[in-house]
Amino acid sequence: MTYLRDDGMRAAFIHGAGDVRIETVPDPVLKEPTDALVRVVRSCICGSDLHPYHTMPASSEGVSIGHEFVGVVEETGSEVSTVRSGDLVIAPFAWSDGTCEFCREGLQTSCLHGGFWNEDGVGGCQAEAVRVPLADGTLVKAPVKEDSELLPGLLTLSDVYGTGYHAAKRANVGPGDTVVVIGDGAVGLLAVLSARLLGAERIVLMGRHKARTDLGREFGATDVVAERGDEGIEEVRRLTGGHGAARVLEAVGHMPAYEQAVGVVRPGGVISRVGVPQYAEAPVGFSSLFGPNITLTGGPAPVRAYIEELMPGVLEGAVQPGRVFDRTVDLEQVPDGYRAMDRREALKVLIRP
Amino acid sequence: MTYLRDDGMRAAFIHGAGDVRIETVPDPVLKEPTDALVRVVRSCICGSDLHPYHTMPASSEGVSIGHEFVGVVEETGSEVSTVRSGDLVIAPFAWSDGTCEFCREGLQTSCLHGGFWNEDGVGGCQAEAVRVPLADGTLVKAPVKEDSELLPGLLTLSDVYGTGYHAAKRANVGPGDTVVVIGDGAVGLLAVLSARLLGAERIVLMGRHKARTDLGREFGATDVVAERGDEGIEEVRRLTGGHGAARVLEAVGHMPAYEQAVGVVRPGGVISRVGVPQYAEAPVGFSSLFGPNITLTGGPAPVRAYIEELMPGVLEGAVQPGRVFDRTVDLEQVPDGYRAMDRREALKVLIRP
Repeated sequence: MTYLRDDGMRAAFIHGAGDVRIETVPDPVLKEPTDALVRVVRSCICGSDLHPYHTMPASSEGVSIGHEFVGVVEETGSEVSTVRSGDLVIAPFAWSDGTCEFCREGLQTSCLHGGFWNEDGVGGCQAEAVRVPLADGTLVKAPVKEDSELLPGLLTLSDVYGTGYHAAKRANVGPGDTVVVIGDGAVGLLAVLSARLLGAERIVLMGRHKARTDLGREFGATDVVAERGDEGIEEVRRLTGGHGAARVLEAVGHMPAYEQAVGVVRPGGVISRVGVPQYAEAPVGFSSLFGPNITLTGGPAPVRAYIEELMPGVLEGAVQPGRVFDRTVDLEQVPDGYRAMDRREALKVLIRP
Repeated sequence: MTYLRDDGMRAAFIHGAGDVRIETVPDPVLKEPTDALVRVVRSCICGSDLHPYHTMPASSEGVSIGHEFVGVVEETGSEVSTVRSGDLVIAPFAWSDGTCEFCREGLQTSCLHGGFWNEDGVGGCQAEAVRVPLADGTLVKAPVKEDSELLPGLLTLSDVYGTGYHAAKRANVGPGDTVVVIGDGAVGLLAVLSARLLGAERIVLMGRHKARTDLGREFGATDVVAERGDEGIEEVRRLTGGHGAARVLEAVGHMPAYEQAVGVVRPGGVISRVGVPQYAEAPVGFSSLFGPNITLTGGPAPVRAYIEELMPGVLEGAVQPGRVFDRTVDLEQVPDGYRAMDRREALKVLIRP
């Protein structure tokens, strides 16, 4: 592979809480005829990367990290037919065959033969290059060059934009709806943008970081509630006629966000979760979900299902989801990027390897 | 009121676990101009009545009990316009105004001005007569006389048929679907009947009481799984191609039934609960609901919303939901009825006051 240095490639590994290192490892190589090798052009750090960054036990070996990227195809296995060398491609945060019963239903995160980056011998994307399994099912070609200004926007289709969109779709957001979005991280802000795209009329964003909620307003939030807990619930109820919102998008994953969702959802309404839950159990009994007939939905977004649908808006500039990136680092600076996101000095960090 | 004895009426009261008594209490009287007084023609004992029958702390005063009935209107308040003296009416297990925003949306169990029998000064229906608040919103006139053989079927519209139907509707059951119903009580069996009515092709009933599951087969179950726990889950998965069913109707309310539902639901599928949960918290994290994008829905059925839709099938004999009644008692025998249901000697007990 001529695009990497002779002595291997550089890639990020997490060795424990707060401990991300850039190391030199062997170049990825094709293993299966359905693989592609992709040189990473843009990657980024995800809010969900902060979960192991906060809690992972120390490990001398380390685990590769990163699950969002756009890149250029460098090599393809003999059975790959939908992408070829030189194509700029978007990779979803889960790889999938595109042909199993779940993929055909648009639930690629449950692909019978798929998986996730950084598992099962597949590397991470905060790196110079990645082996992409099941390339035909996984990768989507984008009609741009690798110097395009649209790359940050296209990169959000790897995860955060598709994840925000999944929250809104699962909640069945439609024209005229009142929606509450909990969380002002990149996913929350893109859930706002998605709700707007689907026609929501009133969008209440719950978050307390002004720079972020200001961007949320530009993405379509009509109201911002900075208060949390009971005070935040009361304010949302006041804004929504006393009974809460029929559609609540939860983009955090911690228990207080779940409780907030239960507090602001209207009887008969939907809580759609896309923040990876950092809890195993939660209130679902008579006084929380059951009594008022609340629906709880969501999960890891099958972003692959949404890329073709959402890409035109990005290419045309109708939406600018790439605005969630407010800092750019190179690969060697990735540990600084984690620190900046952890301290909330950066909303979302773009990586140019 | 000429239809009751001079010295008051007889009514069931629960004084604690296992302690149901029939007592003489003052006749109900009209209190509000929107009230109706209804003489109970048929009532019954509900599976959910067994919850206090198992757990209620002893009380010298006792609480009235019963929330399902059909009866004849004896008196109406000055503002009641949709029913009148002599009408045979069906009463849902929740009373509601029929005009608030939730009632207009078909979620009468969340009516802003409504409530439940045996609360807020409204009596129970295992009695000779009941005061019905908000009679215009609550009662539905049925075109039969009080000696009709259709009364048991019409009585199921008070709760169990509408509740089984709610489970199926909330799970969005449609033509060709594969459905698992957990629980062979009256609600589970009528969830089977409802799923069939909505076009489900494969209906797996989980239950181990042969007389009940036999009726379930007559109502439309294509398979019966008597095993529980991991064994039951494995058998359902075997029957459903390995991945479980997209629509699971949970008609029990205990934690093992919830766990069973999580075990048999297909990725991307729906668990629809109508058994009143006897737990406050439950697994909803990555490994249970979130990872496979499972939707959890359901709640107390707004049966009022379904009565007009389901009544024609009962009147025409197209469905016979009244077959869930397998024992009949008079009011004095109600304590025996509770014992029989508690010991599972009776599926559902009909009361002829």
